Amino acid sequence: MVSLGAPTTAAAATATTESAQPGDQLPLPSRDETSVDGGKMQDGTLAAPLHEVAVRKQREREAILQRFQEWRLEPVDGDVRDVSELPRSRLSDHERGIVTSDATRIVQQIADGAWTAVEVVTAFAKVAVAAQDLTNCLTEIFIEEGIARAQELDEHFRATGTVVGPLHGLPVSIKDHILLKGRDTSTGYTAWAYKTVADKDAVVVDVLRRAGAVFYVKTANPQTLLSLETNNNIYGTTSNPFNRTLSPGGSSGGESALISSYGSPLGVGTDIGGSIRIPAAWCGLYGLKGSVGRLPHAGLLGSHDGMDNIVGCVGPLARSARDLALFCQVMHAADAPRLEHQVLDIPWRRPPDVPLPPRLAIAILWDDGVVAPHPPITRALRQAKAALEAAGHVVVDWDPMDHQAHWDLISKLYFLDGGEEYRQTLRDGNEPAVPQTEWILSHAPPKAYTAAETWPLNVQREQFRARLLAHWNATAGATGRPVDAVLCPCAPTLAPPHTTVRWWGYTSYWNLADYPAAVFPMGRLDPQDWASASAGAQPAAPRNAVEEFVAAQWDPATYANAPINLQLVGRRLNEERLLATLQVVEDSLAAAAKTATA
Amino acid sequence: MVSLGAPTTAAAATATTESAQPGDQLPLPSRDETSVDGGKMQDGTLAAPLHEVAVRKQREREAILQRFQEWRLEPVDGDVRDVSELPRSRLSDHERGIVTSDATRIVQQIADGAWTAVEVVTAFAKVAVAAQDLTNCLTEIFIEEGIARAQELDEHFRATGTVVGPLHGLPVSIKDHILLKGRDTSTGYTAWAYKTVADKDAVVVDVLRRAGAVFYVKTANPQTLLSLETNNNIYGTTSNPFNRTLSPGGSSGGESALISSYGSPLGVGTDIGGSIRIPAAWCGLYGLKGSVGRLPHAGLLGSHDGMDNIVGCVGPLARSARDLALFCQVMHAADAPRLEHQVLDIPWRRPPDVPLPPRLAIAILWDDGVVAPHPPITRALRQAKAALEAAGHVVVDWDPMDHQAHWDLISKLYFLDGGEEYRQTLRDGNEPAVPQTEWILSHAPPKAYTAAETWPLNVQREQFRARLLAHWNATAGATGRPVDAVLCPCAPTLAPPHTTVRWWGYTSYWNLADYPAAVFPMGRLDPQDWASASAGAQPAAPRNAVEEFVAAQWDPATYANAPINLQLVGRRLNEERLLATLQVVEDSLAAAAKTATA
Repeated sequence: MVSLGAPTTAAAATATTESAQPGDQLPLPSRDETSVDGGKMQDGTLAAPLHEVAVRKQREREAILQRFQEWRLEPVDGDVRDVSELPRSRLSDHERGIVTSDATRIVQQIADGAWTAVEVVTAFAKVAVAAQDLTNCLTEIFIEEGIARAQELDEHFRATGTVVGPLHGLPVSIKDHILLKGRDTSTGYTAWAYKTVADKDAVVVDVLRRAGAVFYVKTANPQTLLSLETNNNIYGTTSNPFNRTLSPGGSSGGESALISSYGSPLGVGTDIGGSIRIPAAWCGLYGLKGSVGRLPHAGLLGSHDGMDNIVGCVGPLARSARDLALFCQVMHAADAPRLEHQVLDIPWRRPPDVPLPPRLAIAILWDDGVVAPHPPITRALRQAKAALEAAGHVVVDWDPMDHQAHWDLISKLYFLDGGEEYRQTLRDGNEPAVPQTEWILSHAPPKAYTAAETWPLNVQREQFRARLLAHWNATAGATGRPVDAVLCPCAPTLAPPHTTVRWWGYTSYWNLADYPAAVFPMGRLDPQDWASASAGAQPAAPRNAVEEFVAAQWDPATYANAPINLQLVGRRLNEERLLATLQVVEDSLAAAAKTATA
Repeated sequence: MVSLGAPTTAAAATATTESAQPGDQLPLPSRDETSVDGGKMQDGTLAAPLHEVAVRKQREREAILQRFQEWRLEPVDGDVRDVSELPRSRLSDHERGIVTSDATRIVQQIADGAWTAVEVVTAFAKVAVAAQDLTNCLTEIFIEEGIARAQELDEHFRATGTVVGPLHGLPVSIKDHILLKGRDTSTGYTAWAYKTVADKDAVVVDVLRRAGAVFYVKTANPQTLLSLETNNNIYGTTSNPFNRTLSPGGSSGGESALISSYGSPLGVGTDIGGSIRIPAAWCGLYGLKGSVGRLPHAGLLGSHDGMDNIVGCVGPLARSARDLALFCQVMHAADAPRLEHQVLDIPWRRPPDVPLPPRLAIAILWDDGVVAPHPPITRALRQAKAALEAAGHVVVDWDPMDHQAHWDLISKLYFLDGGEEYRQTLRDGNEPAVPQTEWILSHAPPKAYTAAETWPLNVQREQFRARLLAHWNATAGATGRPVDAVLCPCAPTLAPPHTTVRWWGYTSYWNLADYPAAVFPMGRLDPQDWASASAGAQPAAPRNAVEEFVAAQWDPATYANAPINLQLVGRRLNEERLLATLQVVEDSLAAAAKTATA
C-alpha cells in the first residue's frame, strides 16, 4: 500500500535525480548495509549503517520527495539553527496567506469560495516538503492522494455550492501511530514497519475525513511513544524549526515541527504524559489534552494495548485556541459517542453556553517543588499574572500538592510489566533503545507486577485524584469560590537540547489527575533579553538530582529563539470551560500588550 | 460504636426476655461455642455452633430488637412461606398509608406538613423489626438514632417552615458494605466484623444525609458480595418475603427483603453483576444500575479495592420508577462531581429535557442463547410486547450477541488474582465458604494473572463493547433508527430456591457493556395460572449443563407467589432517557391492563 521508490542513499535530506514510480520494487539492502551495531551519534540517532528498515523507509520517503523536487529548498547548512521561516520563504504572497491562516479561517475561506481545496493543500504540501528536509518531521507522505481528494471536494463545491462538512478542504496531518487507511503505522518501531498497514481509519481520522479534511502526510513519533522527544531508529531525530539544536518535543514532535513550520494548519497527536502539550509548547503552538473519554481514541497502535491503569488521549495541535475548539466541535458534531463506545456521551457546549463569571479566579503554580522552571517561564507566568489582574481577574498562588509522589506513581503505571513489552518489541525489531528510551526505561521496576499488585497502585491513583479535587475545591478559601483554572509551566525548560529531557512532572501530573490542559504561546526567547541573566538565577541548592541537572542547563544562549508557552488546566471533563477561560487569558494578555505599546 | 446488648441464644428470630442496655459489655463466647466445623445446613448457613463473630453480632442485634419488643410479631411457623404482608399487619391505617407510599410521596407529605418525620420513620422501623424476624434482612440496627434525627428535622420544619433538603425525613436503608459513620461495615466477612466501624460516610450516604434522609438500619449482604443470593457466616441466610423457601436475590438481598416487606421506602445497593437488579427483580421492586461514574461510588468496603477491570455501581432499590429518578436527582443536585472525582460531570436531565420520540422502538431479547428463561418470564415479555404495540410503539427482536463469551470474559475479570483475596479473607476470619461462594469461586482460574496478562482481557472487553455499540446502532436496519431500549429477562428464573443460582448472564452482560439497566415488576406467579404448564415447556434438548440445571428447576409450585420482573436497558450514560423510556413502558402496560379489564 505504500508508494515505493527507487533506492537512494539513506540520508533523508539528500536528493538524487532518480525518479520514482509507484509500484517499483525496492531491492532489500544487503546484510552489511543493515546490520545494527548499536553505535549511536550524539543526538541519539544510529550511526551508519542504518537498520534495514530505516534504509528502506528513508529511501522510499526520499523517492516520494523527489517527485516534488521543485518544492525543495537549496541545501541548508547544518549549522543554521533557526529554519522556521525557510519552508514558506518561496511561496507566493497568496500561498503565504493560506499557510499562515489558522484552520478556522481556512475552512471559512474555502466555504466562501475564496480559496479552493486544491490550492490550500498544495500550499501546505509545498511547505511540508521543505520542512521535512529541514527538521525530519514526516514519515508517510501521500501528497498526490491529498490533492486528488481536494479536487473531488472542489468539484463537489462547484457542483452543489455546499461543503461536505465543517472541515471541507482542510489539510490535517496525522501522527504516525494513528491508523490511516492504506498507510503504514510503523510507530517508530522497526519491528512494526511494513506490517501495520491500516485496513481502516482510526475513529478520529474517520470523523475528520467525513468532515471534509484532506490527508497528505503522517508525522514522526519516537520509539516507544513514551518520550517527550522524537527520535527513532527508522527515521532518526526530529528537530525544532526554531532552533535545530533543540528538540521539537514529543511524542507528537513530528506534528509540532511541521505545524510550526506552517506545513500543516492542524494536527492530531496523543498524550499520556505530555505528548501533545510538550511538543506544542516547545514549538510555540496550541495543544489540548482533554479528559479521558472526551474525544475519540480508538484506532491507535502502541505498546501496552489494553493497559488502562493510565490512559492517553487523542487531541489537536494547532495555531490558534479557536482551532482547538473547532477540532472538538467536529468530533462531537459527528456524534462520536455513537461511533466509539469509549467516548463519553457529553455534548460539546460552545460559547455562550459555557457561562464564565466576568471576574475569573486563576491559581498559578509557580514551582512544583521538585524542579523549578527556568527564568523565562517564571517571567511568562508573571506577565500573565499582571495581565489577568489588570483585566480585573483574581490571581492566587496554587499550593503544590504531591508532585514528586505523582511521578513516583505514574512512572510505576507506565511500566507495570517491568518494561518487558517495550524491550521485546525492540528485540523483535533487532534495534537498540534510543537514548530517551534508555532513560525512561531506567524508571521501570525490576520485575513485572501481578494483577493484584497493581490494585494498590490504582488505589493510590484514586486517592491522589480525590485529594486533588479537595485541594481545588479548597481554593474557595482564597477567592470565595474555587478557581476556574490553574496556570502553570508546561515543563521546567523551554525546548531543550536533544536527548536531555529529565522531568515530565508539569504535564504528567494532569494525566494522572485526568484534568484537561491546554498550552498556549507567549513569545520566543531572545538571548538579548537575558544578557544579565545567568544560571545563577536557578536555585542555589538544588532539591534533587533532577533539579540539579535542569538548573545546570539554564543558559540563554542554549535556548535562543525557543518558544515560550504556558499551560492552563481546567476541571475534569470541562474542556469547553477550559477553552473559554483560555480565551479570556489571551484577551487579557492582548490588552496588556496593547497598553504596553500605547 | 455499636450498641451492645446482653448475651442471648444466637438464633436471630428467637426473642428472650432479657433487656439490653447500651454499653453493656458482651462476654465473648467460649471456644467450644465458636469453633467452625464447616458443617452446613441445607440453606448454606452454618450448623451450630456458630462462629464467635456470629454469636456476638446476632446477640447484639437481638438485644437491640428486644428494645422494640412491642413491635415484634408472634412467632411465625417456619413452614409459612408467604410472609410479605405480616410485617405491616398490625399497623394502624395511618401507618399503613405511610409505609405503602413511595419515597416521592413521602417527602411530599412531609414537606406539606401532612406527616412528621418521626411518625414516618417510626412506621417504617416497626415494619423493619418485624421483617427482620421473618426474613433476616438487617445487620446494624439504630432506630433510636433515626428517630432522634427525625425529631431534629421536625423541629427544623416547625421552626422554619422549610425542609432541609429534598429527602427531608425520608427513611433510607443502607446495604452493609457501604460506609455509614459510626456503624460497623462487616460486609458479611467474619474477619471484618468489629474492625470496620466507619469514621465517615460513603459519598452516597453523605449526600442522602445532607438531603434530609434518616438512617435507621443497615441490611444484609452475602459473603464476598460476589453472589446473587444473600448468605454469610455472621447473620446467616436472608429469605424472600413472598416465599421464604426462595432467595430474595443478592448481593443487595437485605435491601430487597426489607423494602418489599415495606420496612423501607428506598434503599442503596451496589451492582457488579446484577446485585441491585436481581434482588429488586426477585422481590418485585424497581432497581437501577447506572453506567460507571454516573452516581457516587466512593466509600464502600469490599474485596479487590483498586481492581478496575470491571467496576460496580451504587444505585437505588425502590417501590416506584419515579423514586429511582428521585434518587439520581438528589445525587446530582448535591453537585456530586465536586464531591467525588469519579462521578462524571454530566448534569442530570429531568423530563421534559429528555425528549423521547412519540413512537418508541424497543428490542426484545427473548433468550440469550445460553439459558432460556422460564415460561412466566417469556409470558411477561409477550405481555409487554403486546402492550407496547397496542400503544403504537415498534417492537423488534434483539439478536443475541456474545452472551456465553461475555460470561467467559467477565468471570475472568472477577478473579484476576485467581480468587486468592477472597480465600485469604475467609482464612483471616476462620470461616468456611458459603455454598454460593464455593460455586462462584469454582470459576476462578487456577492461578493469578500478571498485570500484562490482564491487558488482552481488557482488549477483549473493549472489543465486546465496540461490537455491542455497532450491534445496537445496526437495529436501525429494522426500525429506521436505532432502538431506544432493550427489554429482556432479569434472570432465567424467578427468585430461585436458596443456593441454586447458576446463571448471571442476563444482568452481568450489561455490567460488561456498562449500559444502564432498570428492573420493574410485572406481577407475581400464581401456580393456578400454570396448572397445565410443566417442565416440558423448557427446551427439550438443553444447550449446556447450566441450561439443563435451570430447565430442570421449572415447576410452578416451586415459584409460588414469586415476583415477575423484567429488565429495560438503555444506552451508556443515558440513565435519564432509560427512566423516561421505562415510564412509557409502564404507561403502555397500564393502558393494556385497563383495556383488558374494560
